[in-house]
Amino acid sequence: MPMDLRRHDDALDSPAATRALPRGAARALHKGQQTRAAILDAALGLASHMGLEGLSIGALAEVMQMSKSGVFAHFGSREELQISVIREYHRRFEDEVFFPAVRQPRGLPRLRAMFENWLKRVSVEIDSGCIYISGAVEFDDRPGPVRDALAGMVCDWHAAMERAIRLAVEEGHLRTDTDAEQMLFELHGLILALHHDARFLRRPGALDRARRGFDRILARYATAGAASAPVAEPAAPARRARR
Amino acid sequence: MPMDLRRHDDALDSPAATRALPRGAARALHKGQQTRAAILDAALGLASHMGLEGLSIGALAEVMQMSKSGVFAHFGSREELQISVIREYHRRFEDEVFFPAVRQPRGLPRLRAMFENWLKRVSVEIDSGCIYISGAVEFDDRPGPVRDALAGMVCDWHAAMERAIRLAVEEGHLRTDTDAEQMLFELHGLILALHHDARFLRRPGALDRARRGFDRILARYATAGAASAPVAEPAAPARRARR
Repeated sequence: MPMDLRRHDDALDSPAATRALPRGAARALHKGQQTRAAILDAALGLASHMGLEGLSIGALAEVMQMSKSGVFAHFGSREELQISVIREYHRRFEDEVFFPAVRQPRGLPRLRAMFENWLKRVSVEIDSGCIYISGAVEFDDRPGPVRDALAGMVCDWHAAMERAIRLAVEEGHLRTDTDAEQMLFELHGLILALHHDARFLRRPGALDRARRGFDRILARYATAGAASAPVAEPAAPARRARR
Repeated sequence: MPMDLRRHDDALDSPAATRALPRGAARALHKGQQTRAAILDAALGLASHMGLEGLSIGALAEVMQMSKSGVFAHFGSREELQISVIREYHRRFEDEVFFPAVRQPRGLPRLRAMFENWLKRVSVEIDSGCIYISGAVEFDDRPGPVRDALAGMVCDWHAAMERAIRLAVEEGHLRTDTDAEQMLFELHGLILALHHDARFLRRPGALDRARRGFDRILARYATAGAASAPVAEPAAPARRARR
């Protein structure tokens, strides 16, 4: 990357360029960023439906009605494209799931909001597929930078959930002997079962089962005093899992 | 299929054939079955590593050192091959997970054995991948006979687990208000979380987490009298999830 930037700098060294380009270069950069964002958006859509491995520069060029070399100019390789898609997915996941939840008070309200937002996100993805879940299956035996990027993002999110569980213990909402990793493992299981039953089996009621599972897990770990914990604002109803 | 058989019958109509072939034909049939079984075995190995969609007649012919048309003679199409692989996987799953468990007494011992054998199966598959789990992700938005075959097998197994839960209620080992579908949903979540954490994240301890999750779910649904239920023979230790 620094190499590329230097090359652009060199091009700006000619006197004509230094006079004429700054404004045009800024506009070109801006347009370049817009194109890149549009390609990334299309790539995310493709990857949700066909998997990260289904993503190819060729298919993307077709969707974008661009030349392959045009797409290549923004993402130097298929691998770079896949990693950029994972990063973009993560950014959106944080925007929808994480950031709205951390505005809730620490403890159970925040933990509930995180889980509920996660459920909602997966429910919306019943029709498109969740890149974290499908990517985990696609890359579980393909070591390399794409798998590492994906695993890194998933671990980041798991760590955030675990932190929320520990905070709920500190706040006195969950029992002091709560095994945060174990609780996270069980919550994640509910999310995976929801994705499986609603998306693959098209089984109705999976969203309710996941919510009921959360309440049961909570009932096991919550302290007697947790009932008095402030309750998070009820979230807007998510798009329902397809029947 | 009946058409093919009739064509063979016609070939046997010549007097020489009727004298010479019966024994040879039987041997050829036997050899044909052996070849088919060997191809299926190789196909199962390929599908476990590369997914059902990664399965191709060409790749299989290479592994088997056969011609493509040789493989084609046994499986008329890629789809038929995929479905045969799913059936074979299901047969082995039943042999390892279901049949040994139904020899246990009804109720908790049988339910425990079914879950434990399921765990063991998935643990062994940490290195190869579980066709049920990876197939669910591969085919969740690809309607057709392969998806239907896969979903049918998964539903069969879920139904067997649910039956075991209901029997445990009838035996008085689980509370009469046990929601069997809900309990199955939660147990399946543990299996999926184990597969995800051990296979994709290579996180140690996932097998223990799944077992602990089972005990916690059981503690919630079990009756006070369940402690006196006969305990299943402890299963031989499963191959551990890779650290």
